[in-house]
Amino acid sequence: MKNSFFNNNGPFKFKEILNQLNLQNDKNNEDLIINDINDLQNSNSNEITFFHSKKYKIIANITKASFCITTENLKNELPKQCIAIIVDNVLVSTAIVTSMFYPNSIKDDFDDTVNDINKTEFNNKVKYGKNVLIGQNVSIGKNCLIGHNSIIEKNVSIGDNCTIGSNTIIKNCLIKNDVRILDNCVIGKHGFGFFPTQNKNLRYPHMGIVIIEEDCEIGCGSTIDRGSMSNTIIGKNTFLDNQIHIAHNVKIGENSIIAGQVGIAGSSIIGKNVKIGGQAGISGHLKIGNNVEIAGGSGVIKDIPDNTKVMGYPAKNIRKFLKENRWYIKQQL
Amino acid sequence: MKNSFFNNNGPFKFKEILNQLNLQNDKNNEDLIINDINDLQNSNSNEITFFHSKKYKIIANITKASFCITTENLKNELPKQCIAIIVDNVLVSTAIVTSMFYPNSIKDDFDDTVNDINKTEFNNKVKYGKNVLIGQNVSIGKNCLIGHNSIIEKNVSIGDNCTIGSNTIIKNCLIKNDVRILDNCVIGKHGFGFFPTQNKNLRYPHMGIVIIEEDCEIGCGSTIDRGSMSNTIIGKNTFLDNQIHIAHNVKIGENSIIAGQVGIAGSSIIGKNVKIGGQAGISGHLKIGNNVEIAGGSGVIKDIPDNTKVMGYPAKNIRKFLKENRWYIKQQL
Amino acid sequence: MKNSFFNNNGPFKFKEILNQLNLQNDKNNEDLIINDINDLQNSNSNEITFFHSKKYKIIANITKASFCITTENLKNELPKQCIAIIVDNVLVSTAIVTSMFYPNSIKDDFDDTVNDINKTEFNNKVKYGKNVLIGQNVSIGKNCLIGHNSIIEKNVSIGDNCTIGSNTIIKNCLIKNDVRILDNCVIGKHGFGFFPTQNKNLRYPHMGIVIIEEDCEIGCGSTIDRGSMSNTIIGKNTFLDNQIHIAHNVKIGENSIIAGQVGIAGSSIIGKNVKIGGQAGISGHLKIGNNVEIAGGSGVIKDIPDNTKVMGYPAKNIRKFLKENRWYIKQQL
Repeated sequence: MKNSFFNNNGPFKFKEILNQLNLQNDKNNEDLIINDINDLQNSNSNEITFFHSKKYKIIANITKASFCITTENLKNELPKQCIAIIVDNVLVSTAIVTSMFYPNSIKDDFDDTVNDINKTEFNNKVKYGKNVLIGQNVSIGKNCLIGHNSIIEKNVSIGDNCTIGSNTIIKNCLIKNDVRILDNCVIGKHGFGFFPTQNKNLRYPHMGIVIIEEDCEIGCGSTIDRGSMSNTIIGKNTFLDNQIHIAHNVKIGENSIIAGQVGIAGSSIIGKNVKIGGQAGISGHLKIGNNVEIAGGSGVIKDIPDNTKVMGYPAKNIRKFLKENRWYIKQQL
Repeated sequence: MKNSFFNNNGPFKFKEILNQLNLQNDKNNEDLIINDINDLQNSNSNEITFFHSKKYKIIANITKASFCITTENLKNELPKQCIAIIVDNVLVSTAIVTSMFYPNSIKDDFDDTVNDINKTEFNNKVKYGKNVLIGQNVSIGKNCLIGHNSIIEKNVSIGDNCTIGSNTIIKNCLIKNDVRILDNCVIGKHGFGFFPTQNKNLRYPHMGIVIIEEDCEIGCGSTIDRGSMSNTIIGKNTFLDNQIHIAHNVKIGENSIIAGQVGIAGSSIIGKNVKIGGQAGISGHLKIGNNVEIAGGSGVIKDIPDNTKVMGYPAKNIRKFLKENRWYIKQQL
Repeated sequence: MKNSFFNNNGPFKFKEILNQLNLQNDKNNEDLIINDINDLQNSNSNEITFFHSKKYKIIANITKASFCITTENLKNELPKQCIAIIVDNVLVSTAIVTSMFYPNSIKDDFDDTVNDINKTEFNNKVKYGKNVLIGQNVSIGKNCLIGHNSIIEKNVSIGDNCTIGSNTIIKNCLIKNDVRILDNCVIGKHGFGFFPTQNKNLRYPHMGIVIIEEDCEIGCGSTIDRGSMSNTIIGKNTFLDNQIHIAHNVKIGENSIIAGQVGIAGSSIIGKNVKIGGQAGISGHLKIGNNVEIAGGSGVIKDIPDNTKVMGYPAKNIRKFLKENRWYIKQQL
């Protein structure tokens, strides 16, 4: 997982990893070097990965990783070069190891590197309001506006002709050209991802960022969380209305229109040219096709194929919904 | 459309309008003067209007406008004095022409005329927090409070005995006496109105403002968008709870009560003494009568007559809803 | 009702109370002293209470209060030592008397006692951003962070190892150790409680506070209102996602998980280990048991016993919901 927002704190020796997981040392391999953590598909030699479900068996069979956090039941699926690290809970252990490599991806502390924009190189490149704060290593293109009290945290990149409203906070985010982000938004904080435990929930790392493509508009009071192991992406020329919540890892295609107070739960993938009415909700880990229309107030709990219109809770084909509610459409209230 | 927030950039000559729309010049009339743009009903001589649907035929027949953006099919409905301008998409062309007259009504850039309140005439008339910003030509009545970090943009007018919370942004807004707007609100930004196109959505102008009548309360984190061709209005003694979204052109009657997280889509008209429960949603362009009660969580998709109680999604008469769910009310969960 | 946030402006003489309620004086008792106002159960001698519904008959029979605001119909339920004050609307009169004792509990004006944190004792005890404001008598534990533009109002107490985000406002709130409150939140303003009247709604006092127990996380853009006669409480190790609204007097048990855009209406009590999916809504005055799971988008309108999973609007047992929607789950959209 490479980006300029979360620095890799590695490499670590194998024995350091085992120690952190409270596992017995492996004397034969204890000094082997581990450079990074990655998913099964993208791991390379001298990297560590994780494998927690049979669903991923085929990818596991050919992973290039040298180490893999997994279970007794799954370990035989791994190729020979890959040393299995057997644990009780793969995801919890993965979170712990990820935090070793990317300690800053766990937290969401405010950026204490920011400076008053008047004291930065942007003081004559950007048109800005009062009390604007800019973090280290931020880049901002030509012809941009930043409203009052807004905070652009470290490493954020903003393209040309962008407008950022007032009272808005942007962190861990890549913004392309011609994007407008309105007032009171929070873009790029970590997602609502953690392992529940009775005494103290364990947050898992969020090493992904938010990418907002060209010509997007994000309405007032919206929140877009950054990804955990992948990025959260808003496609080109997609418009979001006010008070929308986009959870971590969500990807929205281009030319989509999302009305006020919509919520999209973690890891769902939304197609191109999708229209979502106000207050609709989309559950996590779903795939919504291209040219889909979701009526306002709908609750979507399963995948929707391309070119489909849905309505209701649970959201169903709009023809079926309207048929079921035909009496209602005809009658007086 | 007259108000003190959006200046008319006209008049324009007819040939300038045609040129902007990429239409062929009309040599006979090219130097005629057009003073303003207005709707069919309110247009006067030497003004331009638009006519895009047979629904408005009767008003079109008697419009006083000298020019009208319309289609080949509709042009014969116009009176003789009115010169038809034939286009493919009336609304898009109207947006383009409106933007010529009211260029500032397209954008929502932060107000760069604001000053620290300490440097304004209000420094000893208003009780205010730290870091309060006040735009040009703002008026504020007697006995008002403005919390920390709040921004009152240019031309906003606030009555007597009003309280504005902290971190709140107010623009393009007329606030009457005894109004309370709580923290983290954004009042008066443009609505979510634009013409979708594949490459770059075209925003349409919002020349309307927000009017908040006497004795209203607006809860924390709420957004109220200004109107496009008319105003967004919150009636006297109407209370809004937290995190409510009121879209452009909505009008709410007096003495209404709207609970948390409700959303009202564009151009809907809500009556007097209306009660709306938490998280209810109301679709656009609806008419909700007086003394209506809408149960929390309802999704309203058609007009509701006076004195009616509704519940459900789609919202139906509450007696019908409760009858359908009778088993549920009796039985154990 | 005792806490360090709302000072008791009493004692008052009985005649002052009667006068404020526009009631005839009671010459025999006019100089009796009333120290405080409290509910039926917790009142002591020389205090005033209120009794408005037969539901509370048993507690009324044994109240220790010396005075009670009530109706002609209910007065005979009171013990002999308790002087009945007969009014038309018990709750309105109680609001008026409460406002005499606790005048600050009606309002939510910004705290004008705040100072720039640089000028306070916290300037070398807390890690903080730019433009942080701290009210009088605030306490903050060890190892805390406060982000940019945040406001901690008077009397607020924050434990050890807490993180407050940027642009967040905290008032009338007790925060225990290891709590994280993210950006753009408003915690501790008064609830949406008032008596509707045609000309000018009458707000009732909110003397309760918000208590956030150890290890909680509160997501961006959330609002948690303080209580009226009791406190609003978020239990230990309970996590709230973004844009959540918690109304006044709500109590949430420990180890609960509440996803984005959920709303919980006033006075509902939520158990331990409860999971609530995104955008679900819970009506007011309900009791949700321990280990309950509420699916995203559900609308809960009655109590839910322990260990129950519900879904739908109205929320019903999830098995029933899935059975009713079986066709939907099997079929293609």
